Amino acid sequence: MQTDPLSAKFAALADPTRRAILARLALGETTVGELAAPFDMSGPAISKHLKVLQKAGLITRGRAAQWRPCKLEPLALKTVDEWIGEYRRLWEERFDRLEDYIKTIQAKAKTEKKNAGGDEGE
Amino acid sequence: MQTDPLSAKFAALADPTRRAILARLALGETTVGELAAPFDMSGPAISKHLKVLQKAGLITRGRAAQWRPCKLEPLALKTVDEWIGEYRRLWEERFDRLEDYIKTIQAKAKTEKKNAGGDEGE
Repeated sequence: MQTDPLSAKFAALADPTRRAILARLALGETTVGELAAPFDMSGPAISKHLKVLQKAGLITRGRAAQWRPCKLEPLALKTVDEWIGEYRRLWEERFDRLEDYIKTIQAKAKTEKKNAGGDEGE
Repeated sequence: MQTDPLSAKFAALADPTRRAILARLALGETTVGELAAPFDMSGPAISKHLKVLQKAGLITRGRAAQWRPCKLEPLALKTVDEWIGEYRRLWEERFDRLEDYIKTIQAKAKTEKKNAGGDEGE
């Protein structure tokens, strides 16, 4: 079955090691050896993760035969960000409603306090 | 193997049917039957997708025995958005650099045009 590009990106991100690799590459391009160093993982295991990231378009590999540096492709994450952006207003609206509610109960508490203090001036 | 919460969310989003279910639920809560209607899928197949979304915290189910409406939990997507937010500056910086580059070549073209026009005033 063919995977659509957005699903491939989400699937690639669904792994803590792959996300850690992206975090390292956000600092700059590097070799597979250097990428593998902080993980208790075999070279082939890391290569497998890199292939998933590469297939999803999240990283690219250099072409120099010996030194094939990995590079983050941040623009590939932009399409994921755009998908989530469609939902952002939903939790923002929820926070707005919560804020409105807090303001309402604060205003109510103030009015009640004022009324409890007597009807001076009337 | 235990899946971390962020990986579970990304994995749940890595399927076009599940993303379509979330898009429908963004309009309001509804029943499984109504959710299944636009898809050429069996009830159990839809239920399986709903379980993945529920386990990832992206949706919740009502408790009424007969009518167990599904509801989107947009705040669960906020953690995904925050993860991506860490990378947003990378593509924004890239656009900024592109803009700087365009300004530089525009300024250069202007200077060259001016110089080609002769050295009047000197």
